Amino acid sequence: MASLTVTDIRRLRLDSTPISKTVAPSVSADDFKSINSRRKPRSKKFDHHFSFECRAFNGSALKKSASVASSKKIISLGTGRPTADYYPWKMLAFESLTPALKESADQVSTDSPELQTVTKQDCDYNLALALNYGGAMGSPHLLRFFSEHTEMVHNPPYQDWDICLTAGATSAMEIAYRIFCNRGDNILMEDYTYPGTIEGASQLDLHICGVPIDAEGASADFLRKVLETWHLSRGAKPTIFYTIPYGHNPTGVTQSVTRRREIYQIAEEHDLIIIEDDPYYFLNMGSRAADISSNDTRIPTYLSIDTSGRVVRLDSTSKILAPGLRAGWVTASAQVIQKFIAYQEVSTVAVSGPSQLMLWKLLDETWGHEGFFTWLNNLSLEYRVRRDIMVGACELYLPKDICSWVDPVCGMFLWIELDWEKHPRFKHKDQLAQRASPAELVDIEQNILSASLANGVQVTKGSLFKCDKNALSKMHFRMTFAAAAKGDLEEGVKLFADAVKKEFALNL
Amino acid sequence: MASLTVTDIRRLRLDSTPISKTVAPSVSADDFKSINSRRKPRSKKFDHHFSFECRAFNGSALKKSASVASSKKIISLGTGRPTADYYPWKMLAFESLTPALKESADQVSTDSPELQTVTKQDCDYNLALALNYGGAMGSPHLLRFFSEHTEMVHNPPYQDWDICLTAGATSAMEIAYRIFCNRGDNILMEDYTYPGTIEGASQLDLHICGVPIDAEGASADFLRKVLETWHLSRGAKPTIFYTIPYGHNPTGVTQSVTRRREIYQIAEEHDLIIIEDDPYYFLNMGSRAADISSNDTRIPTYLSIDTSGRVVRLDSTSKILAPGLRAGWVTASAQVIQKFIAYQEVSTVAVSGPSQLMLWKLLDETWGHEGFFTWLNNLSLEYRVRRDIMVGACELYLPKDICSWVDPVCGMFLWIELDWEKHPRFKHKDQLAQRASPAELVDIEQNILSASLANGVQVTKGSLFKCDKNALSKMHFRMTFAAAAKGDLEEGVKLFADAVKKEFALNL
Repeated sequence: MASLTVTDIRRLRLDSTPISKTVAPSVSADDFKSINSRRKPRSKKFDHHFSFECRAFNGSALKKSASVASSKKIISLGTGRPTADYYPWKMLAFESLTPALKESADQVSTDSPELQTVTKQDCDYNLALALNYGGAMGSPHLLRFFSEHTEMVHNPPYQDWDICLTAGATSAMEIAYRIFCNRGDNILMEDYTYPGTIEGASQLDLHICGVPIDAEGASADFLRKVLETWHLSRGAKPTIFYTIPYGHNPTGVTQSVTRRREIYQIAEEHDLIIIEDDPYYFLNMGSRAADISSNDTRIPTYLSIDTSGRVVRLDSTSKILAPGLRAGWVTASAQVIQKFIAYQEVSTVAVSGPSQLMLWKLLDETWGHEGFFTWLNNLSLEYRVRRDIMVGACELYLPKDICSWVDPVCGMFLWIELDWEKHPRFKHKDQLAQRASPAELVDIEQNILSASLANGVQVTKGSLFKCDKNALSKMHFRMTFAAAAKGDLEEGVKLFADAVKKEFALNL
Repeated sequence: MASLTVTDIRRLRLDSTPISKTVAPSVSADDFKSINSRRKPRSKKFDHHFSFECRAFNGSALKKSASVASSKKIISLGTGRPTADYYPWKMLAFESLTPALKESADQVSTDSPELQTVTKQDCDYNLALALNYGGAMGSPHLLRFFSEHTEMVHNPPYQDWDICLTAGATSAMEIAYRIFCNRGDNILMEDYTYPGTIEGASQLDLHICGVPIDAEGASADFLRKVLETWHLSRGAKPTIFYTIPYGHNPTGVTQSVTRRREIYQIAEEHDLIIIEDDPYYFLNMGSRAADISSNDTRIPTYLSIDTSGRVVRLDSTSKILAPGLRAGWVTASAQVIQKFIAYQEVSTVAVSGPSQLMLWKLLDETWGHEGFFTWLNNLSLEYRVRRDIMVGACELYLPKDICSWVDPVCGMFLWIELDWEKHPRFKHKDQLAQRASPAELVDIEQNILSASLANGVQVTKGSLFKCDKNALSKMHFRMTFAAAAKGDLEEGVKLFADAVKKEFALNL
């Protein structure tokens, strides 16, 4: 079925009933889907995947009791929500950038001439709502935008997908663990990955089974083999696979479409939940200019091929708008989203109102879906320029017989492998000598890091990303082209290269 | 030792080194304390109270590696933090209210004539910092404000207290459970309490041992008895006591100073951690006009009498500024705050930047400590007026032989007890008849709730707050005077009274 266009969305909104103006209303993506979605089959049941505590846990009874749908005026003596008269802010105003269509990446955007203001009692979403308690699923105004966005971009092939806002993907992942995992469970993820995910797992006493990564992403062969030959002496067979499919952190690898389909097929056979943590999806620096608003140039996500409803997709605003918002959204089957909402009700409660208000005013009221797509396309161009500078500098400065890397096509990371066998500590040793121990590798890594810092550049040690630190057998550094000033990227790489050469006793 | 004054704080700041302008710097309350604090004894060690997972858990290695202190320029290729050039907001502006000193409560504040603006590269705290990743302990600018505030208001009697920001008190409590409790542990709290705390406990499989409440708050006698006679057949002896000491939710009771000291003494004898959840502390409606900035009229908190460092105090901005900010702070000994920071690093990561920016701009840059105190004093006056309206309406409309209550002196809740023996279902029964079953009570409660809603008023069922639903033996409703328009409070109480009378078959 073809994805919706921005024009379809516009028509859909005109035909819909207006959004409720009550405090913290209970809404879901169903309120904003097109008729196409309703024609799809329903998701499979996955409640056998819920952890013991999660099965019986349904969130906050108080919050449910607070949600009253009524056509007449109800005087609220029920919930301890201070009246908006006592919020000390009368008005917020934002000045934003306007994304312009363009061919080159000289500038990411042009200036917006006007201030967008929000007062306490604006007609639609306003300070009185945003500064009050909000629903754990997010404000309806923002939920509508992300629902429409999801139907356009991913068009999940089943009917009852749903969305809730999250306090960022790290928070969402921490909740996902509690939804799906019992203490002591085994979980699958790429054997190098985002440290927050590793640390989140270990503080819940989960055991990580690392999946090696090749040029096309996580190894499907390994995944299949580990699941087919799983022996219960290792504990319960893993039921979740956590993956960063685009511009993988830290390796920069993007999973091929073939690999993605292969892994989804394995998930179907072995009844795996796939957690698709995808903050870098929209930073697409492929050789031809990708247009995210077009069905033709967009690579399919797990969510877009998920016929069963076994994918939990985590989106984040951190890499595409601003990390300080602490806002993201999760898309999955309604049965799973209900659990996310329940856990959020007793922890984060809701995403910051000011963050939601800024997102809504910018995305929905100012840019619209077209503007957002343009912003994302422009951002991809920007990152392409930055990546090219960094890769160019690597070619120029890094010692090639020691350092190797693959040019990333998505995301913000370059992953440099260092051939430790060339290090003075090892290269004169007998060819039959033992492999470097993890401690030796970490030791050399630390020397290079310290020398880099002394030179004036900060890079990140590869060992921080290794799931099983005791199995460390290679040496890597992760460099990002996202954070430094564009003009500093080349110098930064040079300073790092100097540190590597010094440690490997090469001439500077 | 006397508490600091606003003048002392001003002098202290002048003598301090300026705050670092790096992204997500690592700071603590120690950076902002007066010399007085350093002269106090250190806290006792409490690491034996940490849960098994918590003992070994130290947060995010990546975040620690990202924090580089250097006097020279460091080019960052280390952390995946997008440059501020790519945040689409150029400027935020806020218009706020100005608290004015006054004797009456005609208005909570006067209008502020000017807009407070923040641009990307303002000299101090700005959009480039607030929209980037922030430290899990909070921005140094806001942390300084709350540290100073804490030293002035609570002046903890030990040296190494510390503070970190939280994504609200509900989030902080959920983290506190994971710091202090192993699965299956027994915990103490008031036998009616905030449902989020009850639900947070049950999703972690903790067992609540409810402490009855009298007019002076949680019963110290009960607490002492339960601890002295604890038998291991009930599981491990409780090691935490969670309490809402001021304007208790839902009962509105405020613990007396004597009771507070008694409970602290029991905590010392039985090595309890006290979790002081105190969102209503500053809503003080006592008969004489309380001035929160004065040592003389302020009631001591647990934190202020905590010589050992066994109190974990949760503050929230929800009831005193705006709930939608999702921001609060926790004060405890440094060893405990380190654990809060660790758990936040792998979940919420940081409090929303826009929320922090709004708080800082308002509290620190616009109001200052004096303005904040004035705001809190005015708010107390406002709540006093609202409480008086509601209590007056209760006197007028509620049937006195069925309904009883105690006028609250803090907070926002009125707790109405209904004498179920007067209900037609019971009153004609034999005097020796059995007590009403929890199911019967809940049934009548639900009838009154439905009738209230049909009349046009929302109230909250008392049973929602009961820790042990199976032990329900009384009937209550909680009403708040915080949420409705002031002019609707009397009408709301009348509509509820009508519903009660109808259910109890009295003449309307």
